[in-house]
Amino acid sequence: MDAMGIDVQVLSHTAAGLAQIPAAEAVALARAINDQLAETVRNHPDRFVGFATLPTLDPEAAARELERAVTVLGFKGAMIYGQTNNSFLDDSAFRPMLETAATLEVPLYVHPAPPARAVQDAYYAGFDPAVSASFATFGWGWHLDTGIHALRMILGGVFDRYPSLQLLLGHWGEMIPFYLARFAEALTPVARQLQRPVADYFLQQMYVTPSGMFTLPPFLLTMQVLGAERILYSADYPFQDGGQARAFLERAPISPADKEKIAHSNAEKLLKLSLL
Amino acid sequence: MDAMGIDVQVLSHTAAGLAQIPAAEAVALARAINDQLAETVRNHPDRFVGFATLPTLDPEAAARELERAVTVLGFKGAMIYGQTNNSFLDDSAFRPMLETAATLEVPLYVHPAPPARAVQDAYYAGFDPAVSASFATFGWGWHLDTGIHALRMILGGVFDRYPSLQLLLGHWGEMIPFYLARFAEALTPVARQLQRPVADYFLQQMYVTPSGMFTLPPFLLTMQVLGAERILYSADYPFQDGGQARAFLERAPISPADKEKIAHSNAEKLLKLSLL
Repeated sequence: MDAMGIDVQVLSHTAAGLAQIPAAEAVALARAINDQLAETVRNHPDRFVGFATLPTLDPEAAARELERAVTVLGFKGAMIYGQTNNSFLDDSAFRPMLETAATLEVPLYVHPAPPARAVQDAYYAGFDPAVSASFATFGWGWHLDTGIHALRMILGGVFDRYPSLQLLLGHWGEMIPFYLARFAEALTPVARQLQRPVADYFLQQMYVTPSGMFTLPPFLLTMQVLGAERILYSADYPFQDGGQARAFLERAPISPADKEKIAHSNAEKLLKLSLL
Repeated sequence: MDAMGIDVQVLSHTAAGLAQIPAAEAVALARAINDQLAETVRNHPDRFVGFATLPTLDPEAAARELERAVTVLGFKGAMIYGQTNNSFLDDSAFRPMLETAATLEVPLYVHPAPPARAVQDAYYAGFDPAVSASFATFGWGWHLDTGIHALRMILGGVFDRYPSLQLLLGHWGEMIPFYLARFAEALTPVARQLQRPVADYFLQQMYVTPSGMFTLPPFLLTMQVLGAERILYSADYPFQDGGQARAFLERAPISPADKEKIAHSNAEKLLKLSLL
């Protein structure tokens, strides 16, 4: 990660399948995946850092693997792939894992995954299979799914329980910044068990990344709603062209100081990186 | 509708229940609702215009009622409330109604309604009932639902079939402007049966209104993505304070010419209003 944020990369495996295989297998597989990733990082310590893959089907084991990944392997956080057994992370079953992340002060990146079958049937079915598949996932639906995931964590009191927990959301915050004021106006008066107004949890305990969405309007809106302190740059390489990503930020109509935050200094703080 | 858009009001009934009662009753009730609304408009012709309520359970009858409402009662469009029998307007059953709207050149306003039970269970359940209810409707979920409604109409070829059809969406476009570039990038390559790139349908056959969402970031993003020509002002009175609505537009950091378009001239053209 240099001044424009593309020299150190955060590596993770998109091991969405780990929530679909037997828990015991998932635990062993997550260890193997993390060990392999750690080797890559060790071979290129000036180039890569790692995010852990966790066997979320067994939250106690996931907590232990997160601790191992951070304390033994030197990982900087973990990547979560959507729902596990049709549950989001507001489910009390996941508390051991969330507590470990909060205690170790490592962020969780909530990556999109295909929505539940019932949602796919209700919202995205009925078109050519390629159209429905894209509409349900990276074209639309899994972004809604991930935004709801984060909002459920707010409403479920996760961030009151773990005030040091930090969440990372891709794709400029998975719809949330555009409607944060609406959500806050509607939910703050009824979510009486929460300690803070609902928008505060988004502003204080989440970071967002572009994930390869390089058009100006969502970036500028996110800057207005969330501010440069809460944006971490990301290129979604190899799905997007890293050069395009760099050019987008270099040309963005924001101050040099904000570019520095977005390109590297926010990440250095959040991930506790020591860069030259 | 004066220079700031608040002297002529579009009236409609939020008759969401019409999709939940027997079709024959809905047909009679829609006629009665529209007749009553027409009387109000007739009594204050310099103040109100009407949008029709339609019995969407019987799309042929809905088409006839739309024609009557426009040609006999002088209505300027119709208001649709979410799904009918778990179907969105891309369902071929609704073609008679859409064809009539296209032929008469009157817009359809797709108003949010509570999402299908399966979606509510998958996404919004599990909190205090007041929290789940708000989260599923005006706090978050029905906006997603309405955005998906409009996108399904694009992907289903509705706007190729009826190129003169215009849709109205509230709440700054029900999430679509924030992610339009993403949707276009993902769906245009696979939606091969469509005649235009998918974003074009949004830019050419939809208008958006604020519906009482008066914060600058979503407004500015919508201006950047859609432009002043496609925004119709709306205050969501009596749910929101009309005076606040007026002040928001008066103080908005856009040109006087764009304010005029948004405040009244776009509406005059789309709804064929003759204002003094």
